[in-house]
Amino acid sequence: MALIVQKYGGTSVGTPERIKNVAQRVARWQARGNQIVVVVSAMSGETNRLIALAKEIQSQPDPRELDVMVSTGEQVTIGLLAMALKEIGVKARSYTGAQVKILTDSAYTKARILKIDEDRMRADLNAGCVIVVAGFQGVDELGSITTLGRGGSDTTGVALAAALKADECQIYTDVDGVYTADPRIVPDARRLKTITFEEMLEMASLGSKVLQIRSVEFAGKYKVRLRVLSSFADEGEGTLITFEDDEGMEQAIISGIASSRDEAKITVLGVPDRPGIAYQILGPVGDANVDVDMIVQNVGHDGLTDFSFTVQRGDYQKTLKTLEPVVKHIQARGIVSGEKIAKVSIVGVGMRSHAGIASTAFRTLAEEGINIEMISTSEIKISVVIDEKYTELAVRVLHKAFGLDQAR
Amino acid sequence: MALIVQKYGGTSVGTPERIKNVAQRVARWQARGNQIVVVVSAMSGETNRLIALAKEIQSQPDPRELDVMVSTGEQVTIGLLAMALKEIGVKARSYTGAQVKILTDSAYTKARILKIDEDRMRADLNAGCVIVVAGFQGVDELGSITTLGRGGSDTTGVALAAALKADECQIYTDVDGVYTADPRIVPDARRLKTITFEEMLEMASLGSKVLQIRSVEFAGKYKVRLRVLSSFADEGEGTLITFEDDEGMEQAIISGIASSRDEAKITVLGVPDRPGIAYQILGPVGDANVDVDMIVQNVGHDGLTDFSFTVQRGDYQKTLKTLEPVVKHIQARGIVSGEKIAKVSIVGVGMRSHAGIASTAFRTLAEEGINIEMISTSEIKISVVIDEKYTELAVRVLHKAFGLDQAR
Repeated sequence: MALIVQKYGGTSVGTPERIKNVAQRVARWQARGNQIVVVVSAMSGETNRLIALAKEIQSQPDPRELDVMVSTGEQVTIGLLAMALKEIGVKARSYTGAQVKILTDSAYTKARILKIDEDRMRADLNAGCVIVVAGFQGVDELGSITTLGRGGSDTTGVALAAALKADECQIYTDVDGVYTADPRIVPDARRLKTITFEEMLEMASLGSKVLQIRSVEFAGKYKVRLRVLSSFADEGEGTLITFEDDEGMEQAIISGIASSRDEAKITVLGVPDRPGIAYQILGPVGDANVDVDMIVQNVGHDGLTDFSFTVQRGDYQKTLKTLEPVVKHIQARGIVSGEKIAKVSIVGVGMRSHAGIASTAFRTLAEEGINIEMISTSEIKISVVIDEKYTELAVRVLHKAFGLDQAR
Repeated sequence: MALIVQKYGGTSVGTPERIKNVAQRVARWQARGNQIVVVVSAMSGETNRLIALAKEIQSQPDPRELDVMVSTGEQVTIGLLAMALKEIGVKARSYTGAQVKILTDSAYTKARILKIDEDRMRADLNAGCVIVVAGFQGVDELGSITTLGRGGSDTTGVALAAALKADECQIYTDVDGVYTADPRIVPDARRLKTITFEEMLEMASLGSKVLQIRSVEFAGKYKVRLRVLSSFADEGEGTLITFEDDEGMEQAIISGIASSRDEAKITVLGVPDRPGIAYQILGPVGDANVDVDMIVQNVGHDGLTDFSFTVQRGDYQKTLKTLEPVVKHIQARGIVSGEKIAKVSIVGVGMRSHAGIASTAFRTLAEEGINIEMISTSEIKISVVIDEKYTELAVRVLHKAFGLDQAR
């Protein structure tokens, strides 16, 4: 008998009909002799509706009170899914994050999970009951409701799987796995049967929105066996996220091509090339609560250098404003910046042991006349910033250049 | 410094604009040096929307799970009202029923309050904080969410006032007090400055929907000073529900005329007039979960009598079905019944010490050619069942006959 945690996203529970379908799927898994914990998101559109309502009251809603009302979205879904299960004769019981309880810190709207009580769930499971838990939410030490931030339901699923030492955590979504590239861009893209955690982390952080990055980190840390599946297709095997050391299978050199248009680039020109200058630029940016993604600084000459980085597009204007006094203070020459960029990344653990990946990538882009504006690399990925209009073209030619359209 | 509990119903918090108005009103009361606890209902329409959603999953929704999802309506409102208060500079903090905590039994969808923790609220109040509590809901000993049933937000308000020994519990609604009759029926109806608890209980149970009857009982039991006010009008004094022995003021003989069209009448004809027969008829009705209101049995003759009672119109068909085997079993002659009836009641504590009220009422109805089908009396009320079509006429002529259109 296996213990399986299944997580269903907002689209999968978007209508009463779909909730009934989820109940049927859960019932099938249970009928095969498994113990099942289900984590659900709010019905699609509901979280946005609640946030919009809050903004009619306060343009910057109070975080504690926002969590109180936004968490109701998942609370409605757990009630409905538990009803749907009971309706088809499956014993079920719903729990909010506070009821489980999923203890978090008090960072409203982006809380972190500290601890999960498993006793109550274990008792229900042993009684043959399916447990339906509200994703995305928890409770702090004082009993206030917290939420984990966007995509937090994935994290709830993985955290429950870790706490219960589940055999597998299944993330049901509207795609049937992780692909070598976005199939809307590359028709030849193939579903990966497996992908390593490190690759998945890079893919997630690079704009492949199949899994929320925090949940992948969490799964990696607690060695949770994670699988991505479709809640619409008939039962397939999806994509299993593997631990490199666990699974003996041969890894492909490159697993996939990810792309993201969510960023903007900023270059501070003619920066005095002296120690501490990076901190003088990025310190104020961090203080303004802006996350910086790529950072590139080349060797300087004549005591000056250019310092470039990318930020989320939503933070672009704020970042420029933050830098105005900084540029004056450090006596830099000025700023050039742009929003119309895309980041395209090649991800694969095989890169570590294979030379020539970068040059293949750069040559491929050059042959298409695509100019590379920034480059950043890690052990298992190469990211380039290019003009936004070439995004699809770049993804397609790189996908082909690395043979990802060929069955392995 | 007074401690005041204010309860706002669904219409009063029906839109973001109205929630802001409530916040302004709360702020004014606090600025006058009062400590304020606010109890709110779900935004109007929200509870029905949630119940409809549940019924798309289960025609008879599981009660525990129904409470889980329906309770989210109030949870959204507390978040919004706390935001609205903070937005205008008032310290505020929201609490769900479980957070307060309002401990109830486990009778889902119609739970009863057992105990309320006041420590946390007291600490917040002493810190100058307005407390915003979700009405209609609580939590049972196992931590499951419960609801108190329709109108339960009034009960929450009164129960909190009792627990905190509040100086006054103010129920804000869409009318500005209790009237001598429904102003839509009797244009001359006057707002009562005071009404006794007993009268209010009769009025509430007789179809005057200003206050939910359980909340009035609760207030009477715990000696909570209760006031009904309008959340739309400028601040008036509303109607104060008084304890007869507390307040020295002279009571009117008759306080008001109430009417209700929610009932149906059933008469079992030719019932053997022997001990235990009432139980044989009403026992099965009670077992079918039907509440019986008026019960009338006259002296029999020839060993037979007729046994009449009224039930909620929604229970009418079920009751008839329940009685079919009973009628055979007790060898009664048969059943006559009707849905097209109304109950009109004259309420007033002065009845106790004044003779002739009943005869005035019966004469007044007779003069209009209105036939009385059933009569039932208590110490402070006289109820008659009449043909539904005469409802308004009966209310108007009784209102006039007892001089309720004259200022006191």
